Amino acid sequence: MSDIIQKAKFAREASYALAKLPGTVRDQELGKVAEAIWRHREAILEANARDLEAAEEMLRKGEITGAMIKRLELNPEKIRGIVEMVRGVASQEDPLGKTEYAMELDEGLELFRVSSPIGVIAVIFESRPDALVQIASLCLKSGNCVLLKGGSEARNTNQRLFEVIRDAADAVPGGWIHIVEARREVGEILKMDDYVDLIVPRGSNDFVRYIQSNTRIPVLGHADGVCHVYVDSEADVPMALDVCYDAKVQYPSVCNAVDAILVHEAVAPWFLPGMVDRFLRRGVEVRGDARVRGIVEEGVLEATDEDWGAEYLDYVVAIKVVDNVEEAINHVNKYGSHHTDAIVTSNEGTALGFLESVDSASVFWNASTRFADGYRYGLGSELGISTGKIHVRGPTGLEGLTTYKYYLRGGGHIVADYASGGSRQFTHRSLDREWKRKL
Amino acid sequence: MSDIIQKAKFAREASYALAKLPGTVRDQELGKVAEAIWRHREAILEANARDLEAAEEMLRKGEITGAMIKRLELNPEKIRGIVEMVRGVASQEDPLGKTEYAMELDEGLELFRVSSPIGVIAVIFESRPDALVQIASLCLKSGNCVLLKGGSEARNTNQRLFEVIRDAADAVPGGWIHIVEARREVGEILKMDDYVDLIVPRGSNDFVRYIQSNTRIPVLGHADGVCHVYVDSEADVPMALDVCYDAKVQYPSVCNAVDAILVHEAVAPWFLPGMVDRFLRRGVEVRGDARVRGIVEEGVLEATDEDWGAEYLDYVVAIKVVDNVEEAINHVNKYGSHHTDAIVTSNEGTALGFLESVDSASVFWNASTRFADGYRYGLGSELGISTGKIHVRGPTGLEGLTTYKYYLRGGGHIVADYASGGSRQFTHRSLDREWKRKL
Repeated sequence: MSDIIQKAKFAREASYALAKLPGTVRDQELGKVAEAIWRHREAILEANARDLEAAEEMLRKGEITGAMIKRLELNPEKIRGIVEMVRGVASQEDPLGKTEYAMELDEGLELFRVSSPIGVIAVIFESRPDALVQIASLCLKSGNCVLLKGGSEARNTNQRLFEVIRDAADAVPGGWIHIVEARREVGEILKMDDYVDLIVPRGSNDFVRYIQSNTRIPVLGHADGVCHVYVDSEADVPMALDVCYDAKVQYPSVCNAVDAILVHEAVAPWFLPGMVDRFLRRGVEVRGDARVRGIVEEGVLEATDEDWGAEYLDYVVAIKVVDNVEEAINHVNKYGSHHTDAIVTSNEGTALGFLESVDSASVFWNASTRFADGYRYGLGSELGISTGKIHVRGPTGLEGLTTYKYYLRGGGHIVADYASGGSRQFTHRSLDREWKRKL
Repeated sequence: MSDIIQKAKFAREASYALAKLPGTVRDQELGKVAEAIWRHREAILEANARDLEAAEEMLRKGEITGAMIKRLELNPEKIRGIVEMVRGVASQEDPLGKTEYAMELDEGLELFRVSSPIGVIAVIFESRPDALVQIASLCLKSGNCVLLKGGSEARNTNQRLFEVIRDAADAVPGGWIHIVEARREVGEILKMDDYVDLIVPRGSNDFVRYIQSNTRIPVLGHADGVCHVYVDSEADVPMALDVCYDAKVQYPSVCNAVDAILVHEAVAPWFLPGMVDRFLRRGVEVRGDARVRGIVEEGVLEATDEDWGAEYLDYVVAIKVVDNVEEAINHVNKYGSHHTDAIVTSNEGTALGFLESVDSASVFWNASTRFADGYRYGLGSELGISTGKIHVRGPTGLEGLTTYKYYLRGGGHIVADYASGGSRQFTHRSLDREWKRKL
């Protein structure tokens, strides 16, 4: 049996024991993890230095970018941030054991729906070493076992962080955490639907689509962030300028940055000159359709069909003039990626129509698309942003790592008594009571 | 463009308009559907008679069973039941527009998470014609568009029911409901991840697995119902006899009937003789392991390895003696299908350990597995029972057909103000307020 199947089987077995571990113990173990990371910071930095050395060599060969090295690099300050993140996860509310539904089916026959861990999660993540710690912490907090596959550039750092976490959390059932080293092992994970309950790929769009196409295991991952701002005829123009500017330039390389701005024709002559001017002064490349270029002649490149639906992740923005809000809604639903889209308007009816008709996880009224984020939403540490509609949608924290179970407690109740001609009837009375584990 | 892609595109467009239809209108349209089905009952019965005629011919050729004909057959009484079912769906609470999370991010910047339709659902279902009406009603109630593919044996009945529903619900955006006729069109649906948000296959295990393996679209469907009852050393023996008997014989051809009974060795000599006797007198085939056959010598066939994990859907049961509750838990997690499993015991600690460690959607204490059902759970009309852990688990009604959206209402808020050195800070104050659509 291959090494990875062994690990996954081991994780599956550990998942049954981990599901019973009380929240207080999970939090105490997270505390030990935080403490151990700080205590072993020299060894972690030493492993990181080896990764950086190899990365510098790759940079010289042009195989990676300087930005990637910056993401890979750890220092004591970054390690302090990681430790605080782990403590933050520990301090969040326990996502497990919450009674979501409680119903008396009949006298002495009580049903409880209780939040539970999913089981075994496989996470494939980018090269930032803090990602490993964040994912491991979220999984432990939510009672899940985890298979971790990080970027190969961070191999030494990830291995050391993994060992520190595994050794520190010694009251957690052994086998709850594994590291997956070889890229070919990802292909094996995709086949293990008996042992893996959920795959979370964090990576390029093509990679996420590849995973979705090649496994029966459910996949939680977002594939694109093509975001729009629609500036309505009744928009406050200075507000629209600020929102669009922030949505583009505050941090352009992320999924919730705006890609295309749609402008109502009635406001275009008042909005476009100022907007284009601000963008150009900030070094943003502006691509406009013919109607945009009819209003602002200088500095606006020609937008092509490829611009609608493009995710730039850079200082580039496409702008289009539309006849009305319906055209804007249709454009967003056709070309968007159902991630985050915004309307700027002072008309409440127009805003509500946009919010209800735009088929996206997050739809904003008079606010920048950049607010779409688990921390900003008050959801705690973010696992990812889902553009799928099943299970979880939008910014996702611990909730994405939980499911539920139905517990039914009876006194020997049988269904025959409730069949036609039977002696009993269902009461279906909501219970105002939590499922409580006896201490 | 093929006919089925046209239908799916049409459904996708209709889904944006349907998402805005108020619950009162959806309920009123369901009322019109119920009324129309009753008014057109003669035409529906006439179409059903044509299907039955073809089915009788297939029965003579041995291509289908008498039980299938019985399921296919409609009569005025069954139609009355269907009409009542539609009215029942209409009377359920509106699953849409519920505020699940409300948070002030900052003064004047308010986030609401609101339950929403998923969009376009494709449902592939069995030959019972009431299934079409039930699925269409659940989809309309939850604001979803639907592609319906029924069994070919019910083709004429389904076509007539589809026309009655489509024509009756004339205030619903056109294109919300489509019927898919050819089996080959199912293959096309699997590729349409741009137009279809969720596939619900109701059929054989192999069929559900085939769907899961051949699409990127999320699949909601259960693949097996391999259910266990564990009779603990501290079980009340008469109660255990009643629960096991009910779980097997009350209706053996369904997914929540028990397949294997596990008996603690300490109680086996008191439990097994009576249990086997009751089963044999009712015509149940009993297959036991060596230890069972050591206690009850007559009438018990030899269980083979294939019996553990088998779903019988018939008057057959496997019985095994185990050393302790741990062995029972491990057996259930290894051979079960994570559907429904029960423990009979008077020891609360043993029961809670079993409930928490058994990795199944429904885990029962002193009650028959046959209670696992959306109606019995008080969830309303049942779409299916999910043995997956993602999105929905266990008996699933309208909740399986909804997702949510995040609405953020601001006053021109931008993220730059909250970045380091910015002028503002998040308040993250829970709001005790619903998202309200202006009337």
